[in-house]
Amino acid sequence: MPRYKLTVEYDGTPFVGWQRQDNGESVQSVLEASAARLAGGPVAIHAAGRTDAGVHATGQVVHLDLVKDYPADTVRDAINYHLGRHPVAVVESELVGEDFHARFSATGRAYLYRILDRRPPPALDRHRVLWQPTPLDAGAMAEAAARLIGHHDFTTFRARECQAKSPMKTLDVLRVTRMDTEIRVVAEARSFLHHQVRNMVGTLILVGQGKWSPDDVSRALAARDRVAGGPTAKPDGLYLTGVRY
Amino acid sequence: MPRYKLTVEYDGTPFVGWQRQDNGESVQSVLEASAARLAGGPVAIHAAGRTDAGVHATGQVVHLDLVKDYPADTVRDAINYHLGRHPVAVVESELVGEDFHARFSATGRAYLYRILDRRPPPALDRHRVLWQPTPLDAGAMAEAAARLIGHHDFTTFRARECQAKSPMKTLDVLRVTRMDTEIRVVAEARSFLHHQVRNMVGTLILVGQGKWSPDDVSRALAARDRVAGGPTAKPDGLYLTGVRY
Repeated sequence: MPRYKLTVEYDGTPFVGWQRQDNGESVQSVLEASAARLAGGPVAIHAAGRTDAGVHATGQVVHLDLVKDYPADTVRDAINYHLGRHPVAVVESELVGEDFHARFSATGRAYLYRILDRRPPPALDRHRVLWQPTPLDAGAMAEAAARLIGHHDFTTFRARECQAKSPMKTLDVLRVTRMDTEIRVVAEARSFLHHQVRNMVGTLILVGQGKWSPDDVSRALAARDRVAGGPTAKPDGLYLTGVRY
Repeated sequence: MPRYKLTVEYDGTPFVGWQRQDNGESVQSVLEASAARLAGGPVAIHAAGRTDAGVHATGQVVHLDLVKDYPADTVRDAINYHLGRHPVAVVESELVGEDFHARFSATGRAYLYRILDRRPPPALDRHRVLWQPTPLDAGAMAEAAARLIGHHDFTTFRARECQAKSPMKTLDVLRVTRMDTEIRVVAEARSFLHHQVRNMVGTLILVGQGKWSPDDVSRALAARDRVAGGPTAKPDGLYLTGVRY
């Protein structure tokens, strides 16, 4: 069975998240339904990252096996055709070997978190940015972010329902930059714990608001306790931007 | 009565356009309703540009008169509060003199048209870009755009229902640039005829597709006849980005 690697873009707003669930449409369910119409039978799709409800992607990577050997471009175009009204698009398609697995072969994930730092709410970017009506100090956020880079026990930033075996992760990049009224946080690692990016961003926002110092972030990390960390930032501003293999 | 100048951002997708109409919600009607809740009575709002259904704005300018003398920031915040679920936001507010008129005092308008030039459809930018699945030659489009700059009779690019007294306009800027898979067209003039930007963009797309040459665009302009021009581009990719006074 030929295996295809797809790069997928989606607006997470109307979905219950990546994963198939009983309480609404998921990105996985609409993609699988579209692939099934191409294949003429059920198709299972596996993703590199199971994004939460409301989280977007510009570079999610998935794989699927088809019985028939279609050109990769045909798979991309046919799935896009069947996706119809859903805000999901296959942007790249590639034939890969049977040993490729979107999740287990991945050696890096990159996320972007967009924060709108202005008093008026977003109109055009509603559900696409986190709105922060009180001014943030992006310089202090960048300094605090640097405290989290490296190999650490990230229990403080780990959701209670996280199923990873170990809380030890290596955070390669956590960069905070301001572009006019938008603050962007870029996070890169081999893999992340459940809610790790949102919990780190929620904590950095406390620093941006002047409620926490960068030292407080170091202490929170060292506490290895979720209650020592900041709140979970809303999903609205989060994008899975790429997966490395 | 104090007069306020507001800069307004909106997602045009759910609206019948700027202007109040019987067949649905307009940007004007939801803004006037929000201002009325602040004022405790009806408020008329006048805009610099009456954008079509589906057209967005990042820098629409409007003015309104209030009976009471509120600080400009209060007007901004109160209208934003009352706008609630509507994808419209007042981004700036300023107290101005009685001689200021959002439409008649304007000395320049700037528009941006975003074209997504890739085979897969947009997911995150659906309704925010014009999707062109077949490749466009942005260089040829830029060359053709230069033919339209200057003082001309723009009848070829004027909607039949246009109410302007004269088809003579001075187009100051019509710039085409590519950023990866996105082609951006920036248009600036003191004022535009009805549908002028969308008709010019529709014509430039013919050039990008290789169906027309830049010389064909010059000939179309010289014909001073709407039937000589290209089609009206969809509103999805159009943004009113600023107004000069």
